Amino acid sequence: MGKKIVLEGETQLKTHVREVPTKKDDVFYNPHMRFARDITVLFAQAVEPVNAFDVLAGSGARGIRLAKEAGLKVTLNDANPRACELICENAKLNEVEVKILNLKARKALSEGKYDYIDLDPFGPPTGFVDAAFMALDNRGYIGVCATDTSALCGSYPKACRRKYGAKSLRTEYYGELGLRILCGFLAHAALRQGFGVDFLFSHVTRHYMRVYLKALKKPSKKTRNLGEIVFLQHCFKCLRRNYRKLGELKPKCVCGGENTLCGPLWRGDIADKKTCQRMRGFSGDLKTRDLLSLVGDEQRISLPHYDLHKISELKKTSPPKLSLVEEALKQAGYPYTRCHFNPHGFKTNAPLGKLLEVVGQIRN
Amino acid sequence: MGKKIVLEGETQLKTHVREVPTKKDDVFYNPHMRFARDITVLFAQAVEPVNAFDVLAGSGARGIRLAKEAGLKVTLNDANPRACELICENAKLNEVEVKILNLKARKALSEGKYDYIDLDPFGPPTGFVDAAFMALDNRGYIGVCATDTSALCGSYPKACRRKYGAKSLRTEYYGELGLRILCGFLAHAALRQGFGVDFLFSHVTRHYMRVYLKALKKPSKKTRNLGEIVFLQHCFKCLRRNYRKLGELKPKCVCGGENTLCGPLWRGDIADKKTCQRMRGFSGDLKTRDLLSLVGDEQRISLPHYDLHKISELKKTSPPKLSLVEEALKQAGYPYTRCHFNPHGFKTNAPLGKLLEVVGQIRN
Repeated sequence: MGKKIVLEGETQLKTHVREVPTKKDDVFYNPHMRFARDITVLFAQAVEPVNAFDVLAGSGARGIRLAKEAGLKVTLNDANPRACELICENAKLNEVEVKILNLKARKALSEGKYDYIDLDPFGPPTGFVDAAFMALDNRGYIGVCATDTSALCGSYPKACRRKYGAKSLRTEYYGELGLRILCGFLAHAALRQGFGVDFLFSHVTRHYMRVYLKALKKPSKKTRNLGEIVFLQHCFKCLRRNYRKLGELKPKCVCGGENTLCGPLWRGDIADKKTCQRMRGFSGDLKTRDLLSLVGDEQRISLPHYDLHKISELKKTSPPKLSLVEEALKQAGYPYTRCHFNPHGFKTNAPLGKLLEVVGQIRN
Repeated sequence: MGKKIVLEGETQLKTHVREVPTKKDDVFYNPHMRFARDITVLFAQAVEPVNAFDVLAGSGARGIRLAKEAGLKVTLNDANPRACELICENAKLNEVEVKILNLKARKALSEGKYDYIDLDPFGPPTGFVDAAFMALDNRGYIGVCATDTSALCGSYPKACRRKYGAKSLRTEYYGELGLRILCGFLAHAALRQGFGVDFLFSHVTRHYMRVYLKALKKPSKKTRNLGEIVFLQHCFKCLRRNYRKLGELKPKCVCGGENTLCGPLWRGDIADKKTCQRMRGFSGDLKTRDLLSLVGDEQRISLPHYDLHKISELKKTSPPKLSLVEEALKQAGYPYTRCHFNPHGFKTNAPLGKLLEVVGQIRN
């Protein structure tokens, strides 16, 4: 395993590269996360924080890019002294001045105040989130990555209960449910620490999720947040899904099937359209610009997306083209938007019966 | 407002005494909490931690008593420099050496490692709990006080949702439900921070609740803990209450009434009988010894206690003597125990129908 210099954005990064990154890796650099770091840089360019903290910095890729490409004052921390050496080399290589800490993450978070904190742990972020909120002053931004999507998306519901305190559920829209559980967890941690939040950008890509939130100590925001933390009931027989409060749960679906419960989770917006547009303005990459548009548009409809293949399976027909579904729904007067979670996914507020009828009438 | 010296246990305390303690008080000393501090000292004598931290120390009453009466090495912290001066005076007065910090609570918690941490905030402890777990090494004890019983016991359910992430419910056994919500919250925070817990002692007295737990990093303990965090359904028509998992909720009670939901909460033991007995061995005070026996005995039955007056109200009879209920239930072969939550309360595993029948047959 040798060192190698790679270029990410405008930043050169000296890294140890392995094919498969493992927890035992000396210093962690994951080339597959380049896209995630691109997004972080765009987010920083859009919201312009001053004082950023890359808490679990590894090779320093994210923090150094924030210093170099978004011009932030950056502190980077890693518990591994060899990571700190590499961060130092990378800072010199890019001619940026950064502050480097060599502490355990939670200790590091207690040492200063920041207005952007990035949590990029190997595994769940749950143990660091409260400490991150504590390291904000009265307002600030937090970026959080979760790689334990199998827990959040319903493959390991026990792990989800243990870590996030929520019941996860494996459905055809698992990515969105997982992300909403993560957001619900973050909103709750914020409330515990006296903050209200707005989610400015979130995405599910490959096997990770990333959420960017704005936190501020504002009572009205906290009250509104509380109302957005609810449950979801899903019927596996007819695909119906509804957000419900705990006191309003219904054991049976209107179709006669069983309702299955998921949550607590966040039913509110998981991105802010204006922030998406600002981020988009800084990006020249087609894939990135596409994601930013999609995520911004999704927020018109809070009900989780439908999967066209799943609907066709239910109707025992072959799936029509998505563009025809869009046309038919819009003609029938219902909102429609694609979504970034799933290439066969779309969001609509059309009642389920109407949706099935419309899809059933489409002739390819 | 002058200074005054009071004696608590074997400790002299110089204090500012007011009739009604307020948040604006210069240095907080609440004479009504003497009983709570007595219990803390007994707990420390029973479990023998080494390194204790009184995080929100006020006048230092609890921490200095732990140093003087339980022989612990104690660190006391208060954000108010005048509190620190008073703590210093009180330490001298009692000839104990303690370490005094003048920091914000969460900052203070990040500065060292302890094996007993006491959280005695004015208001909810929710914002400090994660930081307290982070300040333990692989194992240790935490004592937590909550004074926001109106939230936990169902008078302000929204405040409970915001702070504890749980739906509280006003029933005739509100003290127990509130305590179990608090324990559920603590167990969850422990899981977030990688710990499993045993609750060694808990009590609801006047308008506060106190929980003493042992935390340790043991996977099997964590798994068991997870199974003990459940919900409760209560029927206001027939008084039936059942612990249920989220997936097992029933909208209707067997009596035809509506089930009302409460939780998540802790259905496991909220005290450890052996610890209660050890604590009792150190106490000469009748009221205290009584509480310790009662709480130890309660743990035989995890279902919340019944209120005899409420049962009589339902049966439209005047309440029989509790001793007759005990006799009748035991004769019918069911376990019975009084409980510390309520002088008219008792715990039994008898099915509700049987219980009502037995109580109905009692002639005073």
